[in-house]
Amino acid sequence: MYYTDKKLQFPVRVEKPNPVFARALQQAIGGVEGEIRVALQYFFQAWGARGPTKYRDMLLNTATEELSHIEMLSTAVALNLENAPMSLKEQVSEDAVGGSVLNGMNFRHILSTGLAALPENSNGVPFNASHVYASGNLAADMMANVTAESSGRVLAVRLYNMTDDPGMKEMLSFLIARDTMHQQQWLAAIEDMGGLAASLPIPNSFPQEQEQQYVSYAFVNCFVEGIDPPEGRWSSGPSLDGKGEFSTVAGEPTGSEPVLAPPRPDSGAQHEQIRG
Amino acid sequence: MYYTDKKLQFPVRVEKPNPVFARALQQAIGGVEGEIRVALQYFFQAWGARGPTKYRDMLLNTATEELSHIEMLSTAVALNLENAPMSLKEQVSEDAVGGSVLNGMNFRHILSTGLAALPENSNGVPFNASHVYASGNLAADMMANVTAESSGRVLAVRLYNMTDDPGMKEMLSFLIARDTMHQQQWLAAIEDMGGLAASLPIPNSFPQEQEQQYVSYAFVNCFVEGIDPPEGRWSSGPSLDGKGEFSTVAGEPTGSEPVLAPPRPDSGAQHEQIRG
Amino acid sequence: MYYTDKKLQFPVRVEKPNPVFARALQQAIGGVEGEIRVALQYFFQAWGARGPTKYRDMLLNTATEELSHIEMLSTAVALNLENAPMSLKEQVSEDAVGGSVLNGMNFRHILSTGLAALPENSNGVPFNASHVYASGNLAADMMANVTAESSGRVLAVRLYNMTDDPGMKEMLSFLIARDTMHQQQWLAAIEDMGGLAASLPIPNSFPQEQEQQYVSYAFVNCFVEGIDPPEGRWSSGPSLDGKGEFSTVAGEPTGSEPVLAPPRPDSGAQHEQIRG
Amino acid sequence: MYYTDKKLQFPVRVEKPNPVFARALQQAIGGVEGEIRVALQYFFQAWGARGPTKYRDMLLNTATEELSHIEMLSTAVALNLENAPMSLKEQVSEDAVGGSVLNGMNFRHILSTGLAALPENSNGVPFNASHVYASGNLAADMMANVTAESSGRVLAVRLYNMTDDPGMKEMLSFLIARDTMHQQQWLAAIEDMGGLAASLPIPNSFPQEQEQQYVSYAFVNCFVEGIDPPEGRWSSGPSLDGKGEFSTVAGEPTGSEPVLAPPRPDSGAQHEQIRG
Amino acid sequence: MYYTDKKLQFPVRVEKPNPVFARALQQAIGGVEGEIRVALQYFFQAWGARGPTKYRDMLLNTATEELSHIEMLSTAVALNLENAPMSLKEQVSEDAVGGSVLNGMNFRHILSTGLAALPENSNGVPFNASHVYASGNLAADMMANVTAESSGRVLAVRLYNMTDDPGMKEMLSFLIARDTMHQQQWLAAIEDMGGLAASLPIPNSFPQEQEQQYVSYAFVNCFVEGIDPPEGRWSSGPSLDGKGEFSTVAGEPTGSEPVLAPPRPDSGAQHEQIRG
Amino acid sequence: MYYTDKKLQFPVRVEKPNPVFARALQQAIGGVEGEIRVALQYFFQAWGARGPTKYRDMLLNTATEELSHIEMLSTAVALNLENAPMSLKEQVSEDAVGGSVLNGMNFRHILSTGLAALPENSNGVPFNASHVYASGNLAADMMANVTAESSGRVLAVRLYNMTDDPGMKEMLSFLIARDTMHQQQWLAAIEDMGGLAASLPIPNSFPQEQEQQYVSYAFVNCFVEGIDPPEGRWSSGPSLDGKGEFSTVAGEPTGSEPVLAPPRPDSGAQHEQIRG
Repeated sequence: MYYTDKKLQFPVRVEKPNPVFARALQQAIGGVEGEIRVALQYFFQAWGARGPTKYRDMLLNTATEELSHIEMLSTAVALNLENAPMSLKEQVSEDAVGGSVLNGMNFRHILSTGLAALPENSNGVPFNASHVYASGNLAADMMANVTAESSGRVLAVRLYNMTDDPGMKEMLSFLIARDTMHQQQWLAAIEDMGGLAASLPIPNSFPQEQEQQYVSYAFVNCFVEGIDPPEGRWSSGPSLDGKGEFSTVAGEPTGSEPVLAPPRPDSGAQHEQIRG
Repeated sequence: MYYTDKKLQFPVRVEKPNPVFARALQQAIGGVEGEIRVALQYFFQAWGARGPTKYRDMLLNTATEELSHIEMLSTAVALNLENAPMSLKEQVSEDAVGGSVLNGMNFRHILSTGLAALPENSNGVPFNASHVYASGNLAADMMANVTAESSGRVLAVRLYNMTDDPGMKEMLSFLIARDTMHQQQWLAAIEDMGGLAASLPIPNSFPQEQEQQYVSYAFVNCFVEGIDPPEGRWSSGPSLDGKGEFSTVAGEPTGSEPVLAPPRPDSGAQHEQIRG
Repeated sequence: MYYTDKKLQFPVRVEKPNPVFARALQQAIGGVEGEIRVALQYFFQAWGARGPTKYRDMLLNTATEELSHIEMLSTAVALNLENAPMSLKEQVSEDAVGGSVLNGMNFRHILSTGLAALPENSNGVPFNASHVYASGNLAADMMANVTAESSGRVLAVRLYNMTDDPGMKEMLSFLIARDTMHQQQWLAAIEDMGGLAASLPIPNSFPQEQEQQYVSYAFVNCFVEGIDPPEGRWSSGPSLDGKGEFSTVAGEPTGSEPVLAPPRPDSGAQHEQIRG
Repeated sequence: MYYTDKKLQFPVRVEKPNPVFARALQQAIGGVEGEIRVALQYFFQAWGARGPTKYRDMLLNTATEELSHIEMLSTAVALNLENAPMSLKEQVSEDAVGGSVLNGMNFRHILSTGLAALPENSNGVPFNASHVYASGNLAADMMANVTAESSGRVLAVRLYNMTDDPGMKEMLSFLIARDTMHQQQWLAAIEDMGGLAASLPIPNSFPQEQEQQYVSYAFVNCFVEGIDPPEGRWSSGPSLDGKGEFSTVAGEPTGSEPVLAPPRPDSGAQHEQIRG
Repeated sequence: MYYTDKKLQFPVRVEKPNPVFARALQQAIGGVEGEIRVALQYFFQAWGARGPTKYRDMLLNTATEELSHIEMLSTAVALNLENAPMSLKEQVSEDAVGGSVLNGMNFRHILSTGLAALPENSNGVPFNASHVYASGNLAADMMANVTAESSGRVLAVRLYNMTDDPGMKEMLSFLIARDTMHQQQWLAAIEDMGGLAASLPIPNSFPQEQEQQYVSYAFVNCFVEGIDPPEGRWSSGPSLDGKGEFSTVAGEPTGSEPVLAPPRPDSGAQHEQIRG
Repeated sequence: MYYTDKKLQFPVRVEKPNPVFARALQQAIGGVEGEIRVALQYFFQAWGARGPTKYRDMLLNTATEELSHIEMLSTAVALNLENAPMSLKEQVSEDAVGGSVLNGMNFRHILSTGLAALPENSNGVPFNASHVYASGNLAADMMANVTAESSGRVLAVRLYNMTDDPGMKEMLSFLIARDTMHQQQWLAAIEDMGGLAASLPIPNSFPQEQEQQYVSYAFVNCFVEGIDPPEGRWSSGPSLDGKGEFSTVAGEPTGSEPVLAPPRPDSGAQHEQIRG
């Protein structure tokens, strides 16, 4: 069960409202790199967690924190929209960022919400919950969470660099710090389960002798003849899980051309296909 | 530029066609854990790659390989659909898996494709390209790729366990092995760039002194008073990037209740809101 | 069966075409507050209507009218696009609303339709038919329709305030008036079925003695200790259906922490989860 | 800021796990009538609330409660999935509900989550946040909320009637009761603002003399000549806001056929269109 | 403006209701091959039609007819759902099509509509209006319409073959006939504009001397060396527009490897990318 | 299996980067008229092809070529984004196309990709794979492909007219030429199967005596009485398949008003519906 105290986790202050920045902030709310996604992702991972309880507790904890981040960002959007142009006449008036601000806005900020945030990204595309990764495999989920916090921190840095409003920079510097910790936290959970090498390959409960092991540590080169494959840590030397040796092999088919049966007479195909 | 030789990368053989398994296989084609996603993801990462060329080459290479996997799976779907029931009369007939097979099918396999694969998941939801993560940050992208290959291998293992068709098991054991390598490969790219610790926090080009460092390595506990936060590698000891020390702190707001301006008179709100 | 006379229900006149307003108008065509939604919603409610015929007739009638509104708005979009900039050179030319008009346009108006309307919203997001609410419960549907007409009228008012084109203002003043009536109409249907109090709780055919009645009229306060819950008509006094008394109760769990079984050995989880 | 105590708001107990019912329950999680939608809807309404604070507080309160409902339902899904068939061999075994249970399942419960809930509906379609209605108009939002709770309660009743598991019936009887209150609560907010009649037409801040008042209270009959329009509370008598008188008028166009300019020469049209 | 007479264009009769066939019929309502799509497509083409009026009139006419088809199919769905199982107990009972019918149903037919049609496809995916093709080029649109009617007729034939209900077969035989005509009709419009050859390449208003004409009639072979390209009408002989000669050429790049600038210092990339 | 040589099929050169044109180019990548769509469409048609092999080979060939086009366009987007404004300060600076360029950009080009292409359209809507038409009927698919190449060429022409960058014009003149050929190619496949007349009606394997032939070649007029139906090639004379004679008939219902059963007592309807 959940509770709130109505206060913001960190102060949200906008010195000079900018409705175009309000649009940009939407990416951190409803974008695939955003906070609705991580909140729901951690919640669903927690609610479906099978195995040791402490990981579930950690997920539930941070899911709950992420709600506070959506709240901060939504407040920031609303504050950036104060004084936004709402008519095509206002559009021509002068303002700090120059040009016709209205053109750069999310029009639903005017037409659909009356100057408030939406669960959409910076282009106005609504959040789609298929981005909630909760696989039932803890290591896969931790990786998904590191990914989410990495792209999230990249995004927050870009927003930080986009604005020169001191209040906005301060809020973002808090969110950036939290993303730093959250990257750590999910990787630490893998450490806690024995470390990355021991976790690989994910899932580590599948008996590797049942996979086609001759390609388990081979880089398959799909460049046409005469073009060298890229070399690096992946092309030779021991694999990262200590269970194999990297190699590079030429991409070559071992299968033949596929053959499908002709269409059945009553399957809605053309005569010319059925007869062959 | 791209080329094909019309052959399958690995043989695809179905001993006993099962149209319900055809539906399940769709998850590996058009699901968020599937092959269209990784193919497009690696392609877009490659096409937008800025920085050292070898990573771009590696991405391009493996993107091209993933096309061959979509091809294998699509062929497997078509072969599993041979002999599928196409009418409500056939539906009642006996078959190996018992019960009414048609009920378990993707109806578009009958109605829309005439017994062939679709770019959809196992519930019939079409692939949505918002799942292509290509952030412009190489480490974030490598993490996204490890995630994709982890959830992909978990999925392939579940499909392997779902079927007892020897041909299908063989094909899946190949794809599982390739996922093993691809997990390695993206992690090896991070090693190649200096290792995980050096890559953190992602992006590592943002000056950390500009973030609110007092919460950069702190686990924020959002459990209500009286409930202990989870302890583990994340709650104390040095951080994984060697730049901080983990701690646990109580979740407490430092911000106040947000205050928004009242709606403007002509903004489509109710009188009662405008007057306050 | 349906018929048309090719004429517009109300004159659509644009004195000074504005392609940015064309984009804004799209919200009223393909937005969630728009006319495609209500047309389809009323049609599907009508086609699935079970019970007295007069409500079905009313729905069918107004669904048909809404088609005429999509037509008016689509015409208005096309007329606002006459003379729109179509190249990056034209973009720099002067125009009435100042600045670079092309930047504020829906690019598909140029690239995909050749200066005509689309079934999309003002940010270019296509209409998604999941917004068609047709529940099979007449009172729930009437409420959904009042909602649609309320958000629709709010939108129309905002569009009215956004433009100063006399023709557009006139067209919108017609649509606003129709929304006035349609709000009335759906509420009148509830009156016709016995009134709002008698309709509650929706569905009124479920025996209330089967619900956990101790929380049927209780406001559950989820503020943490020490913060007062909001007071108003909902916190005390008789309920609006006359069947209970409002109260405020503290949010408190009566359930315990959920316990799920550990993952099965062959379910694609990590060893560390399976072993506990 | 938000907090949790890890406990369920109400006990969730499943006596006889049924994976097909797990699929049905998904509608109440990720369906348009479900709990993710109301949680996000009330949150976004609260975070964007302009005007008197008490409505914002009420919204924030109930949004927070709805999180607890998603949690209950997600737990119920996971518990209903214990023992679910995960292979096509198991599919043939006998079970309480007869027939091939696997066919009736959400395949992602097996393939994507390892037997846990998803933010999807009962057909496997992911939640789409465009269903979050937060208009900036308090009365419109309250109507949207009554709608959400009405379709939500209809859904909960149908789920209650679908199952005969005593634990599930008990959980649903709690959710049904909460929906009863929430319908009341949002209507009570309208009472609190002066009552429904005073709120109409929504938005009530638009001067009605600017709308085409001759059709503000008129039912437009779109039946072809010779078919009677439906009669009821909406066809005559005073309007519900006391500001007009209902009437029925024949549907007749006052506009003419629309005339668009021919395509421009370089607009990608056919010669035959350009030349006329 | 639009009108209705409440009657069905063609009788809809169901002798033996089958809720699984109700699900299948949804493909013809809300599928990409379905009637909502063609209705909206023809409407938007008509409302945006620039050039000779007769094509607009034809489009408007047939768009209006398509509404009557959605109506027929929605009625057919509702009739097929009479007597459908609505609980997991009913699920086990015997019925004509064998097995557990409920497993094969669209669950929203039970949970969301109370046994009525939805604007969704046969897998429960809602219609998405991005499928409305209205390009502003009349020949392109006519081709899109022939495509829609072709896939529509293929679908109708498959539904016809799926059922043995005489009423359903009769209704489908009507829709199949209409699709026959509509294929003709759109092709006839091309004839009316001068014929297919004259219409090509679409758009025919672009001066072909501005295209890279050396590849305008060349089949580019992307098979690797040693595999023969397919031969047919497209590989030699005069082109279908009489403006060129078909040939087959080897796929060979004329461009070099693309080179992008390194990431900017403040762009959120990794140090290792920026430094090269 | 697939291979690459890392080179571009045709040189991609940008003389003066324009980030607004980068946004426009996205339509040709991830729009419904774009290259991802045709690549996937031809691949899925090929992988599911039943009947003569040469059509499958042709499809596979051109699908592979289309990958090279996505690659060219993605490179063009990245090159147009070099020097793009990334902060609200840069936004005010002067540039060739005038005004505030940032307002016209796809914000995800800044925030999500670090100045690279995305699988989205020009409004930022991600590609949705439901646009992949692969019907199992070869003629229907060829028509779908002509449609794709027609709308694709219309789009390419509009992009050509939008820019005055010589490099971009050159690249587009190549893509336009390829679209010319691809329109030819799919029509040539129909010629190869016996010609268009013989292919009609699609599917031509359904016995036409089973359709309601009295309306198979009749234009149904849905204009209300007194308005003339449009006349043209479709209203009289022999049909295009030589199997019938065109006529125009009045739109008239042969069905009656539909009658649905009242809701069942436990179906979640209102009492007032159930009682009638």
